[in-house]
Amino acid sequence: MKSFDLSLYLVTDRSLALDRSLEYVVEEAVQGGISMVQLREKDCTTKEFYELAMRLKKVLEPYHVPLIINDRVDIALACDAEGVHIGQSDMPYAIARKLLGKEKIIGLSVENLQDAIDANAFDIDYIGISPVFNTATKTDTATALGLEGVHDITQISRHPAVGIGGIHPSNAGDIITAGAVGISVVSAIMSAVSPRDAASQLRSIIDKVRS
Amino acid sequence: MKSFDLSLYLVTDRSLALDRSLEYVVEEAVQGGISMVQLREKDCTTKEFYELAMRLKKVLEPYHVPLIINDRVDIALACDAEGVHIGQSDMPYAIARKLLGKEKIIGLSVENLQDAIDANAFDIDYIGISPVFNTATKTDTATALGLEGVHDITQISRHPAVGIGGIHPSNAGDIITAGAVGISVVSAIMSAVSPRDAASQLRSIIDKVRS
Repeated sequence: MKSFDLSLYLVTDRSLALDRSLEYVVEEAVQGGISMVQLREKDCTTKEFYELAMRLKKVLEPYHVPLIINDRVDIALACDAEGVHIGQSDMPYAIARKLLGKEKIIGLSVENLQDAIDANAFDIDYIGISPVFNTATKTDTATALGLEGVHDITQISRHPAVGIGGIHPSNAGDIITAGAVGISVVSAIMSAVSPRDAASQLRSIIDKVRS
Repeated sequence: MKSFDLSLYLVTDRSLALDRSLEYVVEEAVQGGISMVQLREKDCTTKEFYELAMRLKKVLEPYHVPLIINDRVDIALACDAEGVHIGQSDMPYAIARKLLGKEKIIGLSVENLQDAIDANAFDIDYIGISPVFNTATKTDTATALGLEGVHDITQISRHPAVGIGGIHPSNAGDIITAGAVGISVVSAIMSAVSPRDAASQLRSIIDKVRS
């Protein structure tokens, strides 16, 4: 049985890290309460991506926080990450599952109700509802789904869901109330003066809403 | 025992295909005498890359021409390609070998004599000497090595070598004479009015020099 905690899920973006190392920001964030980390870095070579993944794995292992690799099944295999997160334009999930095996975590981005309905037939471990709100971080995404979208999708989905896109302390609780089991954040942590405090604040909000 | 023929090696680039499908150009080229094909496409999503690889595999299979995937070990695994070609900024070769197994072909780009010396310690199947001449096709490459570079590298390398970069009918024979077992071409085939005739002409030149 795979065990993972989607409640507070950090998605990386080095370009938002205010010139701090990714390892530093991620470790601070984990100490503040991040339960899962996705390495998502688009502008790097395969070698850089691999080396970054190996370094993050080393940071995360002592905390037992799973490392998920965005898109690249080869990087996930190379560093024995806990899983991959795939979008609608990435490797078809069935191929990813075949290459990774049953024990690894596979998350899939869903951008509308139909994606979520389709995903019910898939052997995946969670869905990422993307984007909940408009965001400057990710520019290649579909129309913002809003809290109503989170509600509708989580109602029909058989998979646990995290919301991603434009999530901050002021709206984090609403995403959980709308039906998601967790929230994904990028800039709210990556660009925080104290990633630890930012994670800790979001952790409190989530724990409060869930209790 | 892996069996493959490096003599006339096509590296793809859809952007140079004059609006013709990659499948069309590749099949024409194979009919003209191409012995190996590398799918190298940088500006596409993982899904597009995978679908393109599957389509090329289908084209190449009846001709028993190996399909090599540039950089992406996951795509090679996903479509059961015959191998991968990795550059100095791609996945470390040892990881690629571990993921692909002993039966798959791994080629490595070498950009100078030291790369070639290092590669002698590696369990790879061929080296690509890159670039032999300056070229407009690939802009991220090192200084052109020239025929002297091909000579020096093939003298010290224990692996068979193909030259790549700025190769045309007028210099193709010289690369073989300098010590390479084959030539790699991109635009000389991709942008040819008749990829079949262009391949056939290069095939004649290589066969003549080798005889």
